[in-house]
Amino acid sequence: MTLARRAVAEGLGTAMLLAVVVGSGIMGERLAAGNLALALLANSVATGGGLIALILTFGPISGAQFNPLVTLSLAVMRLMPWREVPPYVVAQIIGGVVGVWAAHLMFGETVFQFSVKARPGMALAWSEVVASFGLLMVILSGVRHRAEAVPYAVAAYIVGAYWFTASTSFANPAVTIARSLTNTFAGVRPQDVPTFIVAQFAGAAAATLMFAWLFKAPAIRAQGRDTRSEALKAP
Amino acid sequence: MTLARRAVAEGLGTAMLLAVVVGSGIMGERLAAGNLALALLANSVATGGGLIALILTFGPISGAQFNPLVTLSLAVMRLMPWREVPPYVVAQIIGGVVGVWAAHLMFGETVFQFSVKARPGMALAWSEVVASFGLLMVILSGVRHRAEAVPYAVAAYIVGAYWFTASTSFANPAVTIARSLTNTFAGVRPQDVPTFIVAQFAGAAAATLMFAWLFKAPAIRAQGRDTRSEALKAP
Amino acid sequence: MTLARRAVAEGLGTAMLLAVVVGSGIMGERLAAGNLALALLANSVATGGGLIALILTFGPISGAQFNPLVTLSLAVMRLMPWREVPPYVVAQIIGGVVGVWAAHLMFGETVFQFSVKARPGMALAWSEVVASFGLLMVILSGVRHRAEAVPYAVAAYIVGAYWFTASTSFANPAVTIARSLTNTFAGVRPQDVPTFIVAQFAGAAAATLMFAWLFKAPAIRAQGRDTRSEALKAP
Amino acid sequence: MTLARRAVAEGLGTAMLLAVVVGSGIMGERLAAGNLALALLANSVATGGGLIALILTFGPISGAQFNPLVTLSLAVMRLMPWREVPPYVVAQIIGGVVGVWAAHLMFGETVFQFSVKARPGMALAWSEVVASFGLLMVILSGVRHRAEAVPYAVAAYIVGAYWFTASTSFANPAVTIARSLTNTFAGVRPQDVPTFIVAQFAGAAAATLMFAWLFKAPAIRAQGRDTRSEALKAP
Repeated sequence: MTLARRAVAEGLGTAMLLAVVVGSGIMGERLAAGNLALALLANSVATGGGLIALILTFGPISGAQFNPLVTLSLAVMRLMPWREVPPYVVAQIIGGVVGVWAAHLMFGETVFQFSVKARPGMALAWSEVVASFGLLMVILSGVRHRAEAVPYAVAAYIVGAYWFTASTSFANPAVTIARSLTNTFAGVRPQDVPTFIVAQFAGAAAATLMFAWLFKAPAIRAQGRDTRSEALKAP
Repeated sequence: MTLARRAVAEGLGTAMLLAVVVGSGIMGERLAAGNLALALLANSVATGGGLIALILTFGPISGAQFNPLVTLSLAVMRLMPWREVPPYVVAQIIGGVVGVWAAHLMFGETVFQFSVKARPGMALAWSEVVASFGLLMVILSGVRHRAEAVPYAVAAYIVGAYWFTASTSFANPAVTIARSLTNTFAGVRPQDVPTFIVAQFAGAAAATLMFAWLFKAPAIRAQGRDTRSEALKAP
Repeated sequence: MTLARRAVAEGLGTAMLLAVVVGSGIMGERLAAGNLALALLANSVATGGGLIALILTFGPISGAQFNPLVTLSLAVMRLMPWREVPPYVVAQIIGGVVGVWAAHLMFGETVFQFSVKARPGMALAWSEVVASFGLLMVILSGVRHRAEAVPYAVAAYIVGAYWFTASTSFANPAVTIARSLTNTFAGVRPQDVPTFIVAQFAGAAAATLMFAWLFKAPAIRAQGRDTRSEALKAP
Repeated sequence: MTLARRAVAEGLGTAMLLAVVVGSGIMGERLAAGNLALALLANSVATGGGLIALILTFGPISGAQFNPLVTLSLAVMRLMPWREVPPYVVAQIIGGVVGVWAAHLMFGETVFQFSVKARPGMALAWSEVVASFGLLMVILSGVRHRAEAVPYAVAAYIVGAYWFTASTSFANPAVTIARSLTNTFAGVRPQDVPTFIVAQFAGAAAATLMFAWLFKAPAIRAQGRDTRSEALKAP
């Protein structure tokens, strides 16, 4: 499949993912009558369901990475060619924003918004480090060992991570940027975005290093091997 | 298996699906003490469970399409013979109605009802476009690439879609018609049905076109090939 | 594996199943502060989780039928020898009762109880017909076509059936008898047991007939074939 | 992979598991507005999601045992060399404690805590016997018969066991020790830890004996066979 087609698929999948995250947040909050646990339960279950479906759907087309951390980590591990990183990341960011707007339209919200929801401080930054570290471990091990199970592993991880991290686990710079553009349940105000993204990269880098050590850095020894096609099929 | 047997299976499966959707809506609303998030959580989890079971059960028999959008899209993609479309669609519509009545009998409700629940407006119509677009992408990609995972992909998608669309994702004309015949949690008043169905067809058409483009319209190039039997086994 | 070992496994698995059903009902009701939807949500999710685990665990040992309807239907379909039906059914009934008592001990309840929870009337009887019909369709089709997915199919079906039937889907005579011996959330008073069991057999018989028709009664034509070992491995 | 690397992976995975258990307990309790059923529902669903992801991730690396009961039982069944038991168990205990502290940091809690939550008495001890018996049956049968499904079986079992046991199913000495170090939702006061651990070993021993009897003690007959590598890949 051509790079253009794969980038479109990547953007489309990321748009659907953000529509799921933001839309189910709006619905959950509207129906939960003020009970935040119920709203987050709906949000997390819906996101998990959406992720299973979207990774199964777009995995065979574009790899269903939906996340610049994943794209970059795969490139570092030489499972993705570097020249494809920019179009993938651009598609993810644009797709995420479009998905937020699509959700707004579904719920009769103003299309263009900025979040005012504060998510500040070291505890939340550390949450994003942990969340991103865990997500990348799940993906790096999964792509290598149990590619067919990656959709379930990632979705299950995120359902858990919505709850076990204080930040509700963004763990994705494209998602973080997009969620700054919605003043609803899933939003984050723009001034907290840079800290989140730095923390996410720190967690992803730690996971990549840990994984490389656990496997004696096989990626570095396999420099000449083009493993792109397998990787794209995998997750 | 003969077409007659497959059409009966398709109707039976759609009847069970509607019994799940409508029955769990009634139970959820009765027990939730006014909390709509809890009622929809029960409704969505029950529908997801039912879909996994029903698609696994009827998939090997009739294809477990349960949805005229899916039947038509597979016919367009030449994965289903056109002459089988009418009996399938008729079976789906009749089955759906029977399933609603079966649910009413289980809960001591009047069998014959019309919904008075209003679901009007452009936001809900757009929701049905998005919901149907996503569902068809999940199915078209799944049938082609990971047929054994389609039951899980579809169920997971619908669990998410109950929450991330403002319409709770009907995404199925047979389901929409049937749900106009129940004045309970899952109902929709008859005058909103036409808009829903038009929106559903728009979303399904967009997905079919998008999928054909992503794969360079392989269906059109494979005109002479009868792929029915594989497709029927798949979803 | 000897019949004695398999019967013990069948009883042990059914005991664990009842401990899950009754125990999670007690816990759900105790914690839910009067909200029955939350209690049933906990009860259904826990039962689904337990069923996945128990069918995966005991399926390769005894078939993990845990249900006289399933044992009898498989015997009718010639997938189980008739002489093994009595020890299986006895083990299921004894196991179920032991499991209820084990749950009572875990929650500091009196061991020996009788339920006073009324579940009377035609709507509930019809619910049990539908619930048992659906369960047997799931199992009969699953054993034949997708044996490795049966644990997930059955668990998903029961999660749905707790909600879409007005009786919360007992669908199992051994479970029904056992649940008459607990005066907690999952109980049913003894005088409603006979109606439930008759309805369950009616639903199971209808499913067996429907399935045999759909497949042109392959079991009847394959009279000489001993398919026990495959069937036992399957679900 | 070297033993050192595998022990690190085992500790890392157990740390992530405790972060999930404790973190989601804190989040659940904070958001649930006093409704304990909602808090436990969040806690159980998050733990189930985390377990699927973590066992899929670390299973191919270290076996993803995360539990001294499992490590010892596999050694008794000769599926794990005895000399590897001490480093595994030490890594699990250290990892568990680190995971609790990581969760405290994510939620702005004091790092070092002791629980004051009382979980005393025979009913809870019996709950831990049942919980551990069931968990070991799931794992021993799963490793032998359906290794690829063990992540789902264990996670599904634990989701159920949070609800069907009065103790919420610790079923793991490393987890029990670690949870004595958090004075939050998932905690247990130190003086109840010894009883829990004794009960856990009793349940695990019973399951190991039961399983050996069901299979005529194949492990004892296969003394000369080094099955470590398969076992490590399995769960």
